[in-house]
Amino acid sequence: MPKVTFLPSNITIEFKDQENLLKAAMEAGIHINASCGGAGVCNKCRIFVEEGTVKGEELPEGGWKACVTVPETDVVIRVPVESQMDRKALKRPLAKKATSWIKARGRKISIKSEPAITKSLMHVPEPTLSDNLSDLGRIRREVGQSFHLDVDSQVLYRLPYAMREGKWQITASFMETDRIDHKRLIRVEPGNKTEGQHGIAIDIGTTTVSAKLVSLLDQKIISEASDYNPQVSYGEDVISRMEFSRKGQGLKILQEKIVSCINKLIDELLTEGKRTKEDICLLSIAANTVMTHFLLGLETRYLREAPYTPVANRFPPVRAREIGIDLPQHVRIFLAPCVASYVGGDIVAGVVGVEMNHQPELTLFIDIGTNGEIVLGNQDWMACAACSAGPAFEGGGIKHGMRATVGAVEVVHIHPETFEPMVLTIGGKKAKGICGSGIISLLAGLFMTGALDRQGKFQQDLNTPRIRPGRDGWEYVVVTKDATATGEDIVFTEADVENLIRAKGAMFAGYLTLLESVGMAISDLERVILAGNFGSYLDLEQAITIGLLPDIPRDRFFFAGNTSLLGAEICAYSWPKFKEMEEVAQMMTHFDLSDNPRFMDNYVSCLFLPHTDLSLFPSVKEALEGE
Amino acid sequence: MPKVTFLPSNITIEFKDQENLLKAAMEAGIHINASCGGAGVCNKCRIFVEEGTVKGEELPEGGWKACVTVPETDVVIRVPVESQMDRKALKRPLAKKATSWIKARGRKISIKSEPAITKSLMHVPEPTLSDNLSDLGRIRREVGQSFHLDVDSQVLYRLPYAMREGKWQITASFMETDRIDHKRLIRVEPGNKTEGQHGIAIDIGTTTVSAKLVSLLDQKIISEASDYNPQVSYGEDVISRMEFSRKGQGLKILQEKIVSCINKLIDELLTEGKRTKEDICLLSIAANTVMTHFLLGLETRYLREAPYTPVANRFPPVRAREIGIDLPQHVRIFLAPCVASYVGGDIVAGVVGVEMNHQPELTLFIDIGTNGEIVLGNQDWMACAACSAGPAFEGGGIKHGMRATVGAVEVVHIHPETFEPMVLTIGGKKAKGICGSGIISLLAGLFMTGALDRQGKFQQDLNTPRIRPGRDGWEYVVVTKDATATGEDIVFTEADVENLIRAKGAMFAGYLTLLESVGMAISDLERVILAGNFGSYLDLEQAITIGLLPDIPRDRFFFAGNTSLLGAEICAYSWPKFKEMEEVAQMMTHFDLSDNPRFMDNYVSCLFLPHTDLSLFPSVKEALEGE
Repeated sequence: MPKVTFLPSNITIEFKDQENLLKAAMEAGIHINASCGGAGVCNKCRIFVEEGTVKGEELPEGGWKACVTVPETDVVIRVPVESQMDRKALKRPLAKKATSWIKARGRKISIKSEPAITKSLMHVPEPTLSDNLSDLGRIRREVGQSFHLDVDSQVLYRLPYAMREGKWQITASFMETDRIDHKRLIRVEPGNKTEGQHGIAIDIGTTTVSAKLVSLLDQKIISEASDYNPQVSYGEDVISRMEFSRKGQGLKILQEKIVSCINKLIDELLTEGKRTKEDICLLSIAANTVMTHFLLGLETRYLREAPYTPVANRFPPVRAREIGIDLPQHVRIFLAPCVASYVGGDIVAGVVGVEMNHQPELTLFIDIGTNGEIVLGNQDWMACAACSAGPAFEGGGIKHGMRATVGAVEVVHIHPETFEPMVLTIGGKKAKGICGSGIISLLAGLFMTGALDRQGKFQQDLNTPRIRPGRDGWEYVVVTKDATATGEDIVFTEADVENLIRAKGAMFAGYLTLLESVGMAISDLERVILAGNFGSYLDLEQAITIGLLPDIPRDRFFFAGNTSLLGAEICAYSWPKFKEMEEVAQMMTHFDLSDNPRFMDNYVSCLFLPHTDLSLFPSVKEALEGE
Repeated sequence: MPKVTFLPSNITIEFKDQENLLKAAMEAGIHINASCGGAGVCNKCRIFVEEGTVKGEELPEGGWKACVTVPETDVVIRVPVESQMDRKALKRPLAKKATSWIKARGRKISIKSEPAITKSLMHVPEPTLSDNLSDLGRIRREVGQSFHLDVDSQVLYRLPYAMREGKWQITASFMETDRIDHKRLIRVEPGNKTEGQHGIAIDIGTTTVSAKLVSLLDQKIISEASDYNPQVSYGEDVISRMEFSRKGQGLKILQEKIVSCINKLIDELLTEGKRTKEDICLLSIAANTVMTHFLLGLETRYLREAPYTPVANRFPPVRAREIGIDLPQHVRIFLAPCVASYVGGDIVAGVVGVEMNHQPELTLFIDIGTNGEIVLGNQDWMACAACSAGPAFEGGGIKHGMRATVGAVEVVHIHPETFEPMVLTIGGKKAKGICGSGIISLLAGLFMTGALDRQGKFQQDLNTPRIRPGRDGWEYVVVTKDATATGEDIVFTEADVENLIRAKGAMFAGYLTLLESVGMAISDLERVILAGNFGSYLDLEQAITIGLLPDIPRDRFFFAGNTSLLGAEICAYSWPKFKEMEEVAQMMTHFDLSDNPRFMDNYVSCLFLPHTDLSLFPSVKEALEGE
């Protein structure tokens, strides 16, 4: 691998999979002005090659475009500077990522395979005139005293054929029940079919539905698939969908949409995994409370209206076919239990997925999605809350916000002197908008360079054309129209900043409120687990800088990806883990923050960057004072 | 009530509800020649009025037709006689009926009302912001530690509406489970609906389906209905229906037929009882093993073929709707458990219905239907068997046999000198055929008058035109064609007698075999219970005379009517009684007589009237020797 040395900072890194020298510079902590995100159109990212050879595009006035150039040998690159001050500003803090939870713990959290539905091979003596017990009676006799047997009446239809076709060798599927000494016979197949023991784990997110086909005994992931939740057409967020569900056939439509999405994903999983529907024993599904209600076709009206009561938080196993999922009739759905209207099965599954309920460390589990749910606690106790953070960190309610897809500005660094940005977009395409991580780095960068004050207002007297009064108040021009895909300037407005401050304020006020309710403080946190894909992209320093995450040692942060799907997967392997979810849901004390005066006080204090009380953010305070 | 004295016998009885003087004479034990069954056409039943006044029809040659004449005051009636011998023969033994089991025990066998499904009125606290547990959680909290709650997922759909419509007062229906500390929530209704707790008890016979609508808590019969089993169109007996079921859609057709019959009966019961489908909690159904399989749509092929294994003998509660019964989806069917292919839930229900499992007396329970099932035992042990008696006692396989409907010859007395019959038909209409009780009285009468010998052969040298060689061998003319509805002679043939001897022989050999298998004898029997309507019409003396019933003191016989329906009704009231059925089915030792050499020996010995060994029938022996 070629080595790249950047001058004048004299920083050397290895060039691995950074794609081009602009990205390499970003990783090395080197600022290079660049507005087009790497699309090769702004011609601003000029560099000079001092040693070695490169391949890429030369600029007519000399030098190379960093965003489309790669080293062929070890190279020494000079980044042009206009002043000595500039020279200093070129060096910026490196991005600090949270540790991968999975890597830290090892993917295989040791779980014994004890699925809720298991197959047993049974040899049943062939009947004779002197032993002509009924077909079912023969199974009961084999089971003997091991457990009490309940029976699905549907089993009886195929039973006589299965027994004779299998020449008195059958595979019986038994489902666990709430009682340890009771099992339920839900299926019989002729011969030995114990190979085909698979399950499907599904996370139904408000935006995305993700699924995994897994083999239940050896815990292998056979295939994965995901898709947008098609309910999006009827409302971006849960509130608008709940409103839609009340009109005419609304609820029915929403249920049919999610069911057809799941049916499609199952087909994909089976095709890719080369399995059949007959191989499936169970579905393990985690979803927030509203999505769970929609999946079952349950009324959500009272979820929406005070005092916000779900129809149920714990759900009995449901036949997949009963709600329209196209799988054999024995297949059951195990639904992660919910805690309250806005703390759902996705959170409970996540908590069990990361084994928070088995660890002594005081942990803050954060899921920053559309809503923002948090859980505080450890193996002994847990408190949870939904923070009404809104979708700002997913780009919602932000003027040029967008989802993290191709063309989204994902990282921005701002030159502390010139306020010129260094912009990277997803896929290196012309910018279309700004996604969550871009929004955070913009907010953090503008704040740390002093372009934004602690109230989130732009300094109006800075010598830069990038900060200007716009249609919606003062704004920062991230990418000028000549370099965007839209032909319009992409800007970041004071209104956007206000929204973000409210969103991060709601989250942080949530942490504080839960901590205070148990008499603890930020500094007591031994671990912060970031759920969702968000956590893996997040620049910890920036997120702390803006007051979204607590200012504690960085090695206490972990990102855990889609913990809801992780929990669903684990519960597919293990019925005891499913029961643990019920215990966790039961043990969680839910705080309704909308109704909580302490939260309101905390919230108001959080409407600053990073917070009214800077002592809560010692490292940010130090950085600010150090300038 | 007028008194009627018959001369020359000088016997006086009260005239109550005998309808006419012919019936009064039959009841008094007086023989009057009469062939038309009471239809007023044969003009043979002439009587003379010596004192008092009568109303009816006078004969042109003097005297009155007994079959259409009733007394207006106390009367003295002279029955004409041709000889002194005749005078003696006029007096015949009185019919001896078994005691009514219900009357003997009292209708209310004291059963506590503990139905398998009960309704509870619950007041659930209205949710507030500080107590916003889910709707289902509120029910769980009310239930508390009383029992563990399973929940039908369908309950959740109506739950939020029911709670709010009922202003937080709901009626919850709980179903018992196999575990005493677990109940299942299967329905919620708004407000107080505890009034509507009804059940339907059904006996599905091969020929007839009978049903009762009952209120579960006060054990009142609201309405009753019955109908022919429409499967009859596809085969008179279970064997031919099982054959039909194997062809194409046969099984499906048979299931649909019985389900539509039940649906029709339910409609009738509800209309007559002024109840709605919403008032129904459960169905309690008893049926033989084949009928039970057809009801559920289960394969009967292996029931039919050796070694005769049912799909199941114990059935889980089934949703009525699942098999097509048009009742709300919470309604469950509780099916009486079976013992073996030919000893079904009807017998088990019967045994529990007459409480044989709670009594120390050695009891023989006899159900003489198409098949003939017997149970021997007491509270400590039970043995059972099916006797393959065939339908002879229901008129099947008898030349002029018919069911017990209008126009059937139901009682016959034969003049011991002239062999002239005294015939009564059901409804006093012209005879169409002979039903079960008529067949038994014919066989007993012909045997006791010496017209038939112990092998069942006619004496061919008697001086009567009634006994003659016919198309199918020797026969007795019961009704001459001038007095029948068909315009043909109604006869009773030697082939009929053979069939009947085989049928009664199979039953009696069954009793003997079960008794011998436990080292007991006929004389040890402390009680004989006759199930089915048959028992209430049966003349005990006649049935003993032909060797169908054991010759023990007559006060040990009881008839109990439709014990299958009785048992189903009791189990509708009481879940513990339903569990008793399972215990009884479990404790019964089943003897497969088709395979039993001892049975074959006994059977051969039984192919005489009443039996090879006359010492088994002391009272018959005495009567025969007395002549």
